[in-house]
Amino acid sequence: MSELAFPDSAADPVFAMHRGGKISVQPSVDVTDSAGLAMAYTPGVARVCTAIADAPELAAEYTWVANTVAVVTDGTAVLGLGDIGPAAAMPVMEGKSLLFKRFANVDAVPICLACTGTDEIVATVAALAPSFGGINLEDISAPRCFEIEDRLRQLLDIPVFHDDQHGTAIVALAALRGAARVAGKDLGELRAVVAGAGASGVAVTRMLLAAGIGDIAVSDSKGLIYEGRDGLNPVKAALAAQTNKANLTGSTESALRGADVFIGLSSGTVAEPAIAAMAPDAIVFALSNPDPEVHPKVAARHALVVATGRSDFPNQINNSLAFPGLFRGALDVGASDITAAMKLAAADAIAGLVGSDAAPDYVIPSQFDERVAPAVAAAVSAQARTDGVARR
Amino acid sequence: MSELAFPDSAADPVFAMHRGGKISVQPSVDVTDSAGLAMAYTPGVARVCTAIADAPELAAEYTWVANTVAVVTDGTAVLGLGDIGPAAAMPVMEGKSLLFKRFANVDAVPICLACTGTDEIVATVAALAPSFGGINLEDISAPRCFEIEDRLRQLLDIPVFHDDQHGTAIVALAALRGAARVAGKDLGELRAVVAGAGASGVAVTRMLLAAGIGDIAVSDSKGLIYEGRDGLNPVKAALAAQTNKANLTGSTESALRGADVFIGLSSGTVAEPAIAAMAPDAIVFALSNPDPEVHPKVAARHALVVATGRSDFPNQINNSLAFPGLFRGALDVGASDITAAMKLAAADAIAGLVGSDAAPDYVIPSQFDERVAPAVAAAVSAQARTDGVARR
Repeated sequence: MSELAFPDSAADPVFAMHRGGKISVQPSVDVTDSAGLAMAYTPGVARVCTAIADAPELAAEYTWVANTVAVVTDGTAVLGLGDIGPAAAMPVMEGKSLLFKRFANVDAVPICLACTGTDEIVATVAALAPSFGGINLEDISAPRCFEIEDRLRQLLDIPVFHDDQHGTAIVALAALRGAARVAGKDLGELRAVVAGAGASGVAVTRMLLAAGIGDIAVSDSKGLIYEGRDGLNPVKAALAAQTNKANLTGSTESALRGADVFIGLSSGTVAEPAIAAMAPDAIVFALSNPDPEVHPKVAARHALVVATGRSDFPNQINNSLAFPGLFRGALDVGASDITAAMKLAAADAIAGLVGSDAAPDYVIPSQFDERVAPAVAAAVSAQARTDGVARR
Repeated sequence: MSELAFPDSAADPVFAMHRGGKISVQPSVDVTDSAGLAMAYTPGVARVCTAIADAPELAAEYTWVANTVAVVTDGTAVLGLGDIGPAAAMPVMEGKSLLFKRFANVDAVPICLACTGTDEIVATVAALAPSFGGINLEDISAPRCFEIEDRLRQLLDIPVFHDDQHGTAIVALAALRGAARVAGKDLGELRAVVAGAGASGVAVTRMLLAAGIGDIAVSDSKGLIYEGRDGLNPVKAALAAQTNKANLTGSTESALRGADVFIGLSSGTVAEPAIAAMAPDAIVFALSNPDPEVHPKVAARHALVVATGRSDFPNQINNSLAFPGLFRGALDVGASDITAAMKLAAADAIAGLVGSDAAPDYVIPSQFDERVAPAVAAAVSAQARTDGVARR
């Protein structure tokens, strides 16, 4: 039916690749006769069930749970497409599941929910929790995503991680460490402007603050966020209290004058003169997809380092550098949570792979640098032990 | 840790088989470079999402949803083990998922729920529904299982099927057709006694009534169920109205005198004299696992046909003959429901493979008869079209 309704789809290799979906469930044991069936299923399986009922920690050894992650969305903030609903969100969740396997051998299951209420999502994910070793929240719109993640972290004893927030923040921090090295500046002396106060803008800001950045001003669709601005929601009010030391008001572009770093997570645009007005050796991360806030070639006329979310320019900042290894590391030690220090450790591990090789067009490793996921996993596992959240 | 705590487990090949679980998620497309990543994930995937948002029926073509089933339990009635909870139920659900793939190429995902309330289970499964092409309910205790299935069937536009009920009923009916053929009797002249009024006992009884059996008496732990018995729950009261034409009271064994068919789904026992008192050419299905209500060798002294749930005796009655092909057939046509006629068609398809080859030790095909799942699938697809529930 689609070929008739969507003539362009038939010719598009992306649609051909997606036909039938991008993942499958495969047996990892072979059942070819009654004896095998009697072991994998009734009656033999009852012995494994009984053992787990008697000693719940055995579930990690004799089921797939300890290696699984649910990739959960309500379809309200899918890529830059917005609220397209759970059915239309599935290709992204399948893609994420594919990358979990490809990069870190994690068995990820896409779960697209028919509900959008905070209470319903929390209750549903909590009900699913015995089936999974971790929960990756995805493409849930702000500000609900903050409360949903906070409540689930409180309720559950497995890692809960909203990738749009923390995956982006981890990779952005890693790239900023590389960029700062190229610029010969310390993180603590940088003044940054973050455009966008959605899930990723808030999380990037929080993470850069945790990493000790000098100052950040954050803007939303109404301009810069400052203490006392009318109508701030609680998340933005908290942000206002921690950011924008100079209490700047006005536009994103006005704040860029003399700034060292611009991080765009806004789906908006920034004009060339605003980039030109930044400090010498400026760092521009124009991360909106598919259209960066400023074209990277335009930004490069004025900035020392330019990064985007795109694969067709240098310095691609993409969550897939973080989430596979991060969950790999958490699952490997049966982590009960992903702490702030574990996220910082993930960022440092990614940045460490660039290290002294950092250059204007190399502030972050490639998506296909096979060192990334193992390095992130090792750092996250180690930090989980340090933080006392490792159970194995 | 388990080797120390459970020395027997280390030597048990069932535990070796279960280490790390029995299923995995695998990519069905290869992503080896940035170009591939840009198709399977951002930015390319956005085109597929947008197409589905515009035309939701495209989800069946460009995601895995149309080939997936959630195997959902709350862990309250697992095998014969009872309420062992969701974590300990996982090995059974993984086994089921493995068989779904092995026998019918269905991608099944085990979902073990942390809640047991009817409302919570209904809400949770309804919330998950956009992620799956069908819902296989499993090992949920009676009588909640009846209401949960009924409400989900009303709510959802995908098949919802409680396998402990209908899978057992389909295979029992198929075997009874074979056995009746061996005995040279019509279904309509048979008088049956069903021991057990849990999920499977109720469903088998309903299905045999739908298939036109002569009469059935059903017993529970308090004895035979008859109209007017004190304290019947609504499900059993409805059963009383449709069964036990002679209004027999007393024990299961007393009702067996002169009966043509015994079907045990009770975890109880039946003494040899009661089997001996059945009608000539009696049919005994002692289906409790792992211990049949009567040992098959004992039953065979008096009965013409004996079947059990065990693989080490002839005539194994096992749900895995039904559920893989049944869902295959439903998914193939995008069925919105599994109707009573579709279940009967599945039973007839299984029975048809035995046909005139029926013999006392061959009233049902082997689990590994590769004809079974395709035959069931074809019959179920065809009946779905007849019943107007096919969408493709």
